[in-house]
Amino acid sequence: MKNEIDALMQASHVDALLVVGAGQHNPAMVYLTGGGHLTNADLIKKQGETAVLFHGSMERDEAAKSGLTTRCYDLYPMQEYLKETNGNQIEAAALRYARMFADCGVTTGTVALYGSTELGTKFAILSHLQKIMPGLSFTGFSPDPILMTAMMTKSSAELARIRKMGQITTGVVGRVRDFLAGQNTQGETLVNPDGSPVTIGQVKGKINLWLAEAGAENPENTIFAIGRDAGIPHSQGNNDDPLTLGKTIVFDIFPCETGGGYYYDFTRTWCLGYAPDDVLKLYADVKQVYAAVTAELKENAVFKTYQTRTNELFEAQGHPTMRIDPATQEGYVHSLGHGLGLRVHEMPFSGYTAGDNEKLVRGSVFTIEPGLYYPERGMGVRIEDTWFINENGQPEKMVDFPQDLIIPLQ
Amino acid sequence: MKNEIDALMQASHVDALLVVGAGQHNPAMVYLTGGGHLTNADLIKKQGETAVLFHGSMERDEAAKSGLTTRCYDLYPMQEYLKETNGNQIEAAALRYARMFADCGVTTGTVALYGSTELGTKFAILSHLQKIMPGLSFTGFSPDPILMTAMMTKSSAELARIRKMGQITTGVVGRVRDFLAGQNTQGETLVNPDGSPVTIGQVKGKINLWLAEAGAENPENTIFAIGRDAGIPHSQGNNDDPLTLGKTIVFDIFPCETGGGYYYDFTRTWCLGYAPDDVLKLYADVKQVYAAVTAELKENAVFKTYQTRTNELFEAQGHPTMRIDPATQEGYVHSLGHGLGLRVHEMPFSGYTAGDNEKLVRGSVFTIEPGLYYPERGMGVRIEDTWFINENGQPEKMVDFPQDLIIPLQ
Repeated sequence: MKNEIDALMQASHVDALLVVGAGQHNPAMVYLTGGGHLTNADLIKKQGETAVLFHGSMERDEAAKSGLTTRCYDLYPMQEYLKETNGNQIEAAALRYARMFADCGVTTGTVALYGSTELGTKFAILSHLQKIMPGLSFTGFSPDPILMTAMMTKSSAELARIRKMGQITTGVVGRVRDFLAGQNTQGETLVNPDGSPVTIGQVKGKINLWLAEAGAENPENTIFAIGRDAGIPHSQGNNDDPLTLGKTIVFDIFPCETGGGYYYDFTRTWCLGYAPDDVLKLYADVKQVYAAVTAELKENAVFKTYQTRTNELFEAQGHPTMRIDPATQEGYVHSLGHGLGLRVHEMPFSGYTAGDNEKLVRGSVFTIEPGLYYPERGMGVRIEDTWFINENGQPEKMVDFPQDLIIPLQ
Repeated sequence: MKNEIDALMQASHVDALLVVGAGQHNPAMVYLTGGGHLTNADLIKKQGETAVLFHGSMERDEAAKSGLTTRCYDLYPMQEYLKETNGNQIEAAALRYARMFADCGVTTGTVALYGSTELGTKFAILSHLQKIMPGLSFTGFSPDPILMTAMMTKSSAELARIRKMGQITTGVVGRVRDFLAGQNTQGETLVNPDGSPVTIGQVKGKINLWLAEAGAENPENTIFAIGRDAGIPHSQGNNDDPLTLGKTIVFDIFPCETGGGYYYDFTRTWCLGYAPDDVLKLYADVKQVYAAVTAELKENAVFKTYQTRTNELFEAQGHPTMRIDPATQEGYVHSLGHGLGLRVHEMPFSGYTAGDNEKLVRGSVFTIEPGLYYPERGMGVRIEDTWFINENGQPEKMVDFPQDLIIPLQ
């Protein structure tokens, strides 16, 4: 939570944070400012002090909404710095940062860098800043012991926003299911009233429309992949492909609040009309593992222990896993889940590089998404729900939605 | 254009490019790969050679769509690098980069950095990489003499995509105008059929819905600001505010192709029902300057010369400008325009820091957006169209749309 930030900075021996970039679609900046239309901003937070938000003059009202101390870039006139640096924009920008840091009382110590931005320009500016402020040392983390660690525990207000996104997301998934169920078939193909095939592009258009109608945004697109494509976990599906019966469709949807706020993440696997026996078997295997793992979730457990458990369960069913063969492209080929918030993927992670501190603590929000993939057999199955640890320390599914494989057709 | 990249690298003494980040909403990566659902990728381009795209195993099909040489991260096993670095993720990631660069034949020279990404982690990785590959030196630019310079000149395919976005954008603007014109009034307020005030939030909801319907995305939101808010160029407007008659509404809309592709940028200023005399005067002043400046546009002119010209014209009308008083918040307080493409703001720029090489060359696409702002008088006016220099060297408006101030009500 936000009130942990100073203690986390102290524990990490960090004297100040510098957060750069836009006010939207920029998790660290959104977390500390509350979001807002800031084309470009900087935030400096000294340990133990309130953050200062630097903003353009035209965006002073948007900056003020943050409730933070604000300072306009006009106080740091680039035209003068450009004169001092013979027109060198990188050096002039470094000079501006030097004055901003000095005004925040940050002239020595370690500064941790945050924010999503274009890498090259900032790298050059910070390299020059390092030269003109030798008392400062810039650093970044992986894993992140400060902001992402604070963000790992959600407040009740954050949980409510994520649940709202979950309701919107599953609402749209329900509309997609009803739309598909309402179409006709021609042979093995789903067709529109005019007889043309229903395509993946058409379905994705409806998803974006229905998300916008519900006030959500879909910046990372949707996975809606059928057959062999469903067998490749992140294949998005080809817009021109028709929907055919009896093939697995992996439908993975991860929209966010408008303006780049909180995300939801959800997957269902469907077959139109019927499912062949080998698909039924594959689906039953994934569903069994999903049920076993979610039944074992416990407050304060280290998330990656469930990755080990999931590998065991799939291996017991006879499927290849990346644990046994890191290069396998069949069987269980990804990690069990990930934290979720202002990023679609954040701490706690469940992969092998995750830390022992990435636990399912009260207020953490995370996906559980076991899956099995056999691209050469033209099939893939994934079931994903977003879970959290509630205020009583119980694991709880954020929003419920049926896990049926087959969508019956008329 | 893309075919200039090697020459621009040579002229800038850059031996290789490293482009980091996602495959979508990441201009440099989208430019070089064509876009695609890559959660995380790296692209290394050595001068004179084809680019190599590094990608996750699950995204191999998406990577292949780029047509570039692709290499899977599986070839660079993090688990081994983590062993070599005692579990230090930053150092392991640097080790992976070292192997990737070596495999591309890049072990000495200057590497220019590109891509939109979370700054802290990459900064730490590159700082470590610098230590283990002392023959490489990393750099970034402002202004950018390589990629953004190449991107400044659009191919006919790029122009067609931007024009399509312009048609979608102005189509939505027309729907908004027709919607507003179709509502009733109650005193000085626009009201819905049920008598409730039409709010800014309601209009923005419709804008997002209609954009989604047309297959566009609106990642940076829309400016729809009335009265005093219209007097602050980047104020987005408050969702709860009702629309009242006779006040300036600044409507600035800048959507992009789904997946973070090409943008359009467009502004109209409207008054519902009627306009007071001082607004009519302000609007006439802006329109006159828009007409004068666009009539003077010429192929190969340096863009910022029109900024000087715009200042002269507004000053001749008696308005304050930032040229005379850099701290003014009244009158003409921003620059005339900016290039447009995979970014909503890119080269050529017209501001005082823009270079003499930022010219209106054949194939450049740019906005012309003069405006006047008087927040204390509760009004602001901006008129913006996107222009380009066509294949005959003529300046041409990308898409036409009426510049009427008043929306007549029933």
